[in-house]
Amino acid sequence: MDPKLAAAKAALKYVRSGYVIGVGSGSTALMFLSELAENIEGGGLTDVKLIATSTETEYEIVKLGLGELLRYPWQVDHVDVAIDGADEVDKDKNLVKGGGGALTREKIIDYWASEFIVIVDESKLVDKIPSKHPIPVEVVPYAWPLVKARLERDYGGSAELRYSSGKRGPVITDNGNYIIDYRPGSGIEPREGERVIKCIPGVVEVGLFNGLKVSRVIVGKQDGSVNEF
Amino acid sequence: MDPKLAAAKAALKYVRSGYVIGVGSGSTALMFLSELAENIEGGGLTDVKLIATSTETEYEIVKLGLGELLRYPWQVDHVDVAIDGADEVDKDKNLVKGGGGALTREKIIDYWASEFIVIVDESKLVDKIPSKHPIPVEVVPYAWPLVKARLERDYGGSAELRYSSGKRGPVITDNGNYIIDYRPGSGIEPREGERVIKCIPGVVEVGLFNGLKVSRVIVGKQDGSVNEF
Repeated sequence: MDPKLAAAKAALKYVRSGYVIGVGSGSTALMFLSELAENIEGGGLTDVKLIATSTETEYEIVKLGLGELLRYPWQVDHVDVAIDGADEVDKDKNLVKGGGGALTREKIIDYWASEFIVIVDESKLVDKIPSKHPIPVEVVPYAWPLVKARLERDYGGSAELRYSSGKRGPVITDNGNYIIDYRPGSGIEPREGERVIKCIPGVVEVGLFNGLKVSRVIVGKQDGSVNEF
Repeated sequence: MDPKLAAAKAALKYVRSGYVIGVGSGSTALMFLSELAENIEGGGLTDVKLIATSTETEYEIVKLGLGELLRYPWQVDHVDVAIDGADEVDKDKNLVKGGGGALTREKIIDYWASEFIVIVDESKLVDKIPSKHPIPVEVVPYAWPLVKARLERDYGGSAELRYSSGKRGPVITDNGNYIIDYRPGSGIEPREGERVIKCIPGVVEVGLFNGLKVSRVIVGKQDGSVNEF
């Protein structure tokens, strides 16, 4: 079994009828959405509402015929559980997210949820964050050269504006902003990094997620089994 | 003399030929812009470039015939001095800004500048921030109900979405976002408040400005004199 699918299936046990469910973005979260849709259509789950962490996920929910279940923050007063993927996970459950560009709305929903469950395959586990993936930083378009210069001055490395092949030019996020992909030159402690990068004027959100906000990580393996921590 | 005009005139001595000048927003900053324009047209200041902290200021610069001098962050590598107003100033130079809705671009430019000079009339001086004015908080539209709930839960008081009379409905900022005007129930330490409010997911920027970033405050008085600290 695809290890992502194994993690997605294992996450179903944290969802109950009547729940407001935050649905994450990216390939693993969309596998979870597909499993969720089957359970809803099969009648195993009733009276659930869905909150999408991106326009990508919103669109998938509509395509699956579940548009009627979509809700927005002004329509619900809580989220019972959010199920989302990640680009990297360390042993303290700190995350790098935002490879798909949805980091801001993901953090809004994931941090809001009473339970935040991360589903990944084994390849996402790293000793130390950030590892292979750059840190995505959503920025107000006006400020991008300043944020780039500030990151490179304070932590070295390289900060590059993310380009879009679909729409030529810089990627435009769901919120109308740009994304800088930042690879620090020296180490950066993820929880401190989340705070100091977010506090740079012009930064809307940073793709470092604090492990203290994560209730559980479900890791899917090649043999179809999962490990949870 | 209008005390705002007294402060605006006194700020001219911090501007030199060859400078990149950050021009603030609001009535006092626009008086400074008008004084600056006279000096440029009179030949007293040469080879200056202007960076605007809002679309309001950009438009005024163009209307004054100085559009040729406008620059954007990707066109300059520094700002020599920023001259901007404030809604409230305390004795440690901490500020409340954003009554005009331009807090994000103001903070981007004002914090970037080598010197950040605040020009106000006496009525803006307060013992403790926030005083009469609410704290403006720019938020991603999707997140506004959550940010409102979070502020009221953590610090009490009331957080209200700012409405526009010119364009019916919520105010839309230069960055396409909403503004929440927040009046805390209990006290809030401005420097700590700046950090914790900015770190709420969905918050783009907060109108609390750290006094350590302010080089100088120029206070205009009713008799036309000024006081600087």
